[in-house]
Amino acid sequence: MEPRISIITIAVRDLDRATAFYEAMGLVRHKGITDGVAFFQMGGVILSLFPKGDAEADSGVRFGDEPGPTYLAYNTRSDAEVDAVLAAAEQAGGRIVKPAGKAFWGGWYGYFADPDGNLWEVAHNGAFPIDSEGRISLPA
Amino acid sequence: MEPRISIITIAVRDLDRATAFYEAMGLVRHKGITDGVAFFQMGGVILSLFPKGDAEADSGVRFGDEPGPTYLAYNTRSDAEVDAVLAAAEQAGGRIVKPAGKAFWGGWYGYFADPDGNLWEVAHNGAFPIDSEGRISLPA
Repeated sequence: MEPRISIITIAVRDLDRATAFYEAMGLVRHKGITDGVAFFQMGGVILSLFPKGDAEADSGVRFGDEPGPTYLAYNTRSDAEVDAVLAAAEQAGGRIVKPAGKAFWGGWYGYFADPDGNLWEVAHNGAFPIDSEGRISLPA
Repeated sequence: MEPRISIITIAVRDLDRATAFYEAMGLVRHKGITDGVAFFQMGGVILSLFPKGDAEADSGVRFGDEPGPTYLAYNTRSDAEVDAVLAAAEQAGGRIVKPAGKAFWGGWYGYFADPDGNLWEVAHNGAFPIDSEGRISLPA
């Protein structure tokens, strides 16, 4: 296994609702493949929204209760950007799970949930640099 | 929200077991930060393994049953590489959830679960090119 993750799929209960939420967050849906799925190019990885029933039928797995133990983080370049992203999530129909505050690891962060209840951490961690293309790095 | 995902966290029941699994898959754990967490640099994103209880305490969220509706895909450059990654996952202590086979979207793919039951799709999709740095793109 080379060190990469290609696609992050969120199996959603309502594809239109989830798509509208992520579009309201500023993401641009891929216009080429839209039949029963929503794709978003996220730098070098792809975010996919796929109906839960279709994902279960394809994998043969029954997904557990929301939210699952795999969750996503959006890191920012400033504390203020954390506040802005959390506010945007609430505006877009998400839920603030934990308001922005000081992190035990020294930064500023909070959590929101998308309309399906899936958890996103929003964090400013100065020790994890983000380059101009949005790629994040662990400390050297 | 700029189009990026920074960190993908898997909240695991047994950090040592999960870390050993992903190391056996060929990933290299970050040596700088190892106290109660395992980080892996995955190209421009970070994979994090974090104890479930700690993640629940930090977020205030109770995670549902395994596997959750957010799952990951590792895309390959060939059909044979799909078979090899699935075999490696089984060898490393994972479980084959769906053996490799033809996909409805035209490629070759299967699924494995990590020791906590978290789902990974392993797929060769020629329509989604992967560059030399491992970054995947949606069709133009």
